[in-house]
Amino acid sequence: MIFEAISKPTLVIDKEKALRNIARMAAKAKRNHLKFRPHFKTHQSSEIGNWFKDFNVTSITVSSLSMANYFADNGWQDITIAFPLNVRELKGYNELNNSIKLGIVIESIETLDIAERNFHEKVEVYLKIDCGYNRTGINADDAEYIRMMVKRMGNSKNLVFKGFLSHFGDTYHVSGKKNVQEIYHRSVKKMYNLRNATNDLASCYISIGDTPSCSIIDEFEAIDEIRPGNFVFYDWMQYHIGSCKFEDIAMIAICPVVSTHQERNTIVIYGGAVHLSKDYITYDNKKFFGQIVDLKNHYWGNIIKGSFVKSLSQEHGMVHIPSNTIDRFKIGENLGIVPVHSCLTANLASSYHLADGQIVTKNENAFL
Amino acid sequence: MIFEAISKPTLVIDKEKALRNIARMAAKAKRNHLKFRPHFKTHQSSEIGNWFKDFNVTSITVSSLSMANYFADNGWQDITIAFPLNVRELKGYNELNNSIKLGIVIESIETLDIAERNFHEKVEVYLKIDCGYNRTGINADDAEYIRMMVKRMGNSKNLVFKGFLSHFGDTYHVSGKKNVQEIYHRSVKKMYNLRNATNDLASCYISIGDTPSCSIIDEFEAIDEIRPGNFVFYDWMQYHIGSCKFEDIAMIAICPVVSTHQERNTIVIYGGAVHLSKDYITYDNKKFFGQIVDLKNHYWGNIIKGSFVKSLSQEHGMVHIPSNTIDRFKIGENLGIVPVHSCLTANLASSYHLADGQIVTKNENAFL
Repeated sequence: MIFEAISKPTLVIDKEKALRNIARMAAKAKRNHLKFRPHFKTHQSSEIGNWFKDFNVTSITVSSLSMANYFADNGWQDITIAFPLNVRELKGYNELNNSIKLGIVIESIETLDIAERNFHEKVEVYLKIDCGYNRTGINADDAEYIRMMVKRMGNSKNLVFKGFLSHFGDTYHVSGKKNVQEIYHRSVKKMYNLRNATNDLASCYISIGDTPSCSIIDEFEAIDEIRPGNFVFYDWMQYHIGSCKFEDIAMIAICPVVSTHQERNTIVIYGGAVHLSKDYITYDNKKFFGQIVDLKNHYWGNIIKGSFVKSLSQEHGMVHIPSNTIDRFKIGENLGIVPVHSCLTANLASSYHLADGQIVTKNENAFL
Repeated sequence: MIFEAISKPTLVIDKEKALRNIARMAAKAKRNHLKFRPHFKTHQSSEIGNWFKDFNVTSITVSSLSMANYFADNGWQDITIAFPLNVRELKGYNELNNSIKLGIVIESIETLDIAERNFHEKVEVYLKIDCGYNRTGINADDAEYIRMMVKRMGNSKNLVFKGFLSHFGDTYHVSGKKNVQEIYHRSVKKMYNLRNATNDLASCYISIGDTPSCSIIDEFEAIDEIRPGNFVFYDWMQYHIGSCKFEDIAMIAICPVVSTHQERNTIVIYGGAVHLSKDYITYDNKKFFGQIVDLKNHYWGNIIKGSFVKSLSQEHGMVHIPSNTIDRFKIGENLGIVPVHSCLTANLASSYHLADGQIVTKNENAFL
């Protein structure tokens, strides 16, 4: 049994589930005539990157130049860095742009100015559009500003306007398919309007990215590309939103029990903020840092109702277990935990384990 | 200027401040006739570990077997793993115990039983006492249980009872010296009572650990050892608690500005949850993920009032800047950020930068 060999916090991937998640998303993209450009910031692993190749994926998304270099070094030739251009790294962007097909993201005239002066060869530029998430990007209602930028690129030597890119991140803050659909339709309409408003200037590609929309929407109409990342593993947050079924979740953390406190329905695990990350979701007036699942002979089974990680310090995880099940958990046993946010949990690991005991490498350096 | 060379999220250490923090704590320990056994989970760096040697530090604390092995490999010969014994790693504990003086922590009869059967040579055992923090440990009021464990070790072949170890972690959740002092005195009194209650069985060493108590208390009376870790860097949380002056904070993150949104008093930095961690503190009804400071020619100056990291996604940091100062921040400039919790921020980095441009290595692998 794979879990028996694990003695400290470890991330375990159910490869079959991950492959099914990739297959499903790839098929959906194909059915809708969309380019499938998965975001690799979730797994950060060249080996898992290779799993995508069987589904004809040749184009990927990343969120930093460091991550782009890592995947370029591992053979990926068409990479979009879906993060506002960091003008302090222009030397590195230019070097990478010499060796692969690079897409960059710009969201202001200031950055456009700097990019125009500093890119030495043609590079594809996406304008980052804010459709209501209000994290960053150009407000979708500011058509005049956007037209000005598209025009500027029409006269630029090396900046080639490719299209509009958006992340409907507000879907992460709702739950239920209806709410996700509502955000998706409202946001994508803004993208269409922008395309119409710039129709006379250039042809325009539309790229969207969030896992909830990409998982829940079936008919994508007139967009061109999807860039989901989290879907390869999913997690407790996505399950709660409604993006996936429980059976689709492809990664758990395994953490040894080091103490039990029956009188306060708590067990303590070796597994803290440096293993799971401090991200959480709130419902039923409680914070959830992870959901406990049953460990079976082969992989994991169902959730253990009412059992969840309630707080974390650096290496300690405090787990709430209802009175009727706390007897099941003994010091020295392993506990299975569905992470709340698999991207941040995966970022903390230096490798993943598969069912057969095989270890999957990932970029071990933090992307600092 | 050091900051000019930085093009992506980077942790910068003011070595002089860190050395002053170490010197101050070492002097306080000496004045109080305490063993100073600093916790190295904060910096996780063999090079920074060496800075402590000039202050006659020869004994250290860590929070996992992996971390103990890392520092043992770097020459440390006396290490306490201040985390409940993980019985799944007994083979590794035994191996390490063969080569260095190891201290372990036990907090239940169940674990004591397993340890007794599985340690092949003498090892020093601390009982972990819960003085009110309620994270883990044996309740300090449970003198009978504790007496039973001490007695058991009196007859044990290899488990050598050393004393009581506690972490008054509730000091992290208050602010003001008076509140910290109150928790310290209440908690340490429980430790004294326990020592009295087991006086007839064994001599007993008392070890305490939290940075707020160790920073704020001047007279430690009858304890034997302090194990603070965070104090080497301090951070915004410790400043807020009252553990340090602003000038004592020895680490900041440098992150490039990639976008500005004046209309909503927000600038966006390349620097997210994978760089700063998602830990935060709450006051004035707001969440604070980091405090913005002025960058000077050499190192950093004062805080920029009202400017703080208000939210984080994987690589994006959203920073609130008041209207009267937002003009100062331009795309492409570096921003200085005092982390909320330096331990978790440091854990994410693969190295630190010093003022002279020197790079200080740390353990690059996550402790997974």
